[in-house]
Amino acid sequence: MVETGRRNTAAAAGGADTSRVTIAEIAREAGVSTPTVSKVLNGRSQVSAATREKVEALLESHNYLRRRARPARSVGLVDLVVNELDSPWSVEVLHGVEEVATEHGAGVVVTAVHRRPTDVLRWLDNLAQRGSDGVILAVTALAPGQFRKIQELRTPLVVVDPVGDPEPDIPSVGATNWHGGLAATRHLLDLGHRRIAILTGPDDVLCSRARLDGYRAALESAGVTVDPCLVRPGDFHHETGYHAMRELLDLPEPPTAVFACSDLQALGAYEAVRQAGRQVGRDVSVVGFDDLPTAAWASPPLTTVRQPLGEMAAMAARLVLEGMTAVLPGGTQRLELATHLIRRESTAPPP
Amino acid sequence: MVETGRRNTAAAAGGADTSRVTIAEIAREAGVSTPTVSKVLNGRSQVSAATREKVEALLESHNYLRRRARPARSVGLVDLVVNELDSPWSVEVLHGVEEVATEHGAGVVVTAVHRRPTDVLRWLDNLAQRGSDGVILAVTALAPGQFRKIQELRTPLVVVDPVGDPEPDIPSVGATNWHGGLAATRHLLDLGHRRIAILTGPDDVLCSRARLDGYRAALESAGVTVDPCLVRPGDFHHETGYHAMRELLDLPEPPTAVFACSDLQALGAYEAVRQAGRQVGRDVSVVGFDDLPTAAWASPPLTTVRQPLGEMAAMAARLVLEGMTAVLPGGTQRLELATHLIRRESTAPPP
Repeated sequence: MVETGRRNTAAAAGGADTSRVTIAEIAREAGVSTPTVSKVLNGRSQVSAATREKVEALLESHNYLRRRARPARSVGLVDLVVNELDSPWSVEVLHGVEEVATEHGAGVVVTAVHRRPTDVLRWLDNLAQRGSDGVILAVTALAPGQFRKIQELRTPLVVVDPVGDPEPDIPSVGATNWHGGLAATRHLLDLGHRRIAILTGPDDVLCSRARLDGYRAALESAGVTVDPCLVRPGDFHHETGYHAMRELLDLPEPPTAVFACSDLQALGAYEAVRQAGRQVGRDVSVVGFDDLPTAAWASPPLTTVRQPLGEMAAMAARLVLEGMTAVLPGGTQRLELATHLIRRESTAPPP
Repeated sequence: MVETGRRNTAAAAGGADTSRVTIAEIAREAGVSTPTVSKVLNGRSQVSAATREKVEALLESHNYLRRRARPARSVGLVDLVVNELDSPWSVEVLHGVEEVATEHGAGVVVTAVHRRPTDVLRWLDNLAQRGSDGVILAVTALAPGQFRKIQELRTPLVVVDPVGDPEPDIPSVGATNWHGGLAATRHLLDLGHRRIAILTGPDDVLCSRARLDGYRAALESAGVTVDPCLVRPGDFHHETGYHAMRELLDLPEPPTAVFACSDLQALGAYEAVRQAGRQVGRDVSVVGFDDLPTAAWASPPLTTVRQPLGEMAAMAARLVLEGMTAVLPGGTQRLELATHLIRRESTAPPP
């Protein structure tokens, strides 16, 4: 997809400038193949350092990159709006948007609105003044009037929607949360667990309810009754995971496994298990949700459901920069990308 | 500092528009004090929800925010350039820049250049086309010619420099790495440890050498000879921390404590300790460096040296947006913000 995007951009720029050097000419001059030049342009690793250096020098001397003009009326900026920049998943989302924007020669303007109406207004004001080629919203609680204001600016708008609560009529990209909850719970059932707890996210967040329903569906289809004692409310944060797990370990008949609806809750559960003098994996199995980098750095490394936040954000960026109809079948306003289970060392058969 | 920044912006906008509503007028209309309106504008928490709502409604109805014009010739954008967006500290840096930019009514354009000359060229090209009120570089390996190109655009430039390798004549903000290494090692000495290992960062990165020298200075001033066996090279990443710690645990006389020059290396060490059937804290003490959010989520929570990445980035943003002379004493081109030790549960007296 990287190459296609770049070719489109280069092609769009082709007509206007007759003195424009082509990739083929650069290749001839460097004594390498055209695909090799393309690899250098796309930052692929299968090129020797010496070749890369030679090709880059030629690209620079021919001013190649400066000739890749943007489409008419483009301002060369795309906006990403998040609630906070202190959560590990905001950087995953930014990563995905930035990659696609770079392919299109656009910069990414990042704004954190802290769930505050004044911050949203300030951002809308900036947006109106400087313009933008597209807006990617990864915020949960925008007022309907604020959505209207963005639409009045006629800037393409897509919601990256990890919480699964799309606005009607606004295109959005989410993840298959129900399937993720199902896969996490089935994995624990397959290992032989029967007393399986869940640490849920907030009640009013749809993705959290979907994960809980996936958990219930897996248990019920395996003939295991859902024990309400083992369903513990949370808010996706470390601290609630810790407290919920402490309570679970104090039950007369504690669970042998727990599905935490976020990686941070799972890490909170780790700490409760450690303080109880037990070991994650050997004594209690833990599954998370998200697969943030921190999941692989946990000790033991965390088995978790990967939510493709970067890919979701990249898809949203493609939708605003390449146009809905170029990317999606007609009429599609909601996409859900697949979640899948990543098996690491925090899950094992019950002791 | 937040309030000062905003007042300056508001004052700068004052002259042009005679119909401009003041904070005092908003306060009178809302039946609250002027500081209360100021608190709402600055997003402080000490205001009741009802008051906040009333004040925000008045601010919006008077179009208050739209009147806070930017200084003449401002484009309302500031650029942040990082190598990668996959490291947890890139989001800390972004957080700091975004907060200060928002105070100044500017958006933050984030670009990842992946240490690739072509990506730097592409970004420079974008920058030249759209303009920027300032550039904050958090990248390590820019060619001297590329620094010159930024300077030719006459855009204020500051380097956020966690690696401690400033370019001559370019203002930079770093951290007191030597003192951090000293504090980490002294903490372990104070607990009674004498066999203290270090997992270093890359040899050619100045901040890493400074941390190592702080470690040496602490040991030597305590009369403890530095054992070369206990000085293990690394690259700040999880994997090298893991492998180095495995080797250390296999020594005939293994260390009782280790100072890892990054939090990620420390987490790698955690995993090696776990696999050896031992426990961090009880059997082996571990200190990290950075205090990324992941340090507090570790199990046990990681004792570490806090590097104020957010504050460093915020300072860099102030320098470019408010001007060097407004913020710094004349002639100062290099600032180092203090590091300090955060004590958690990964350190204890030797077993």
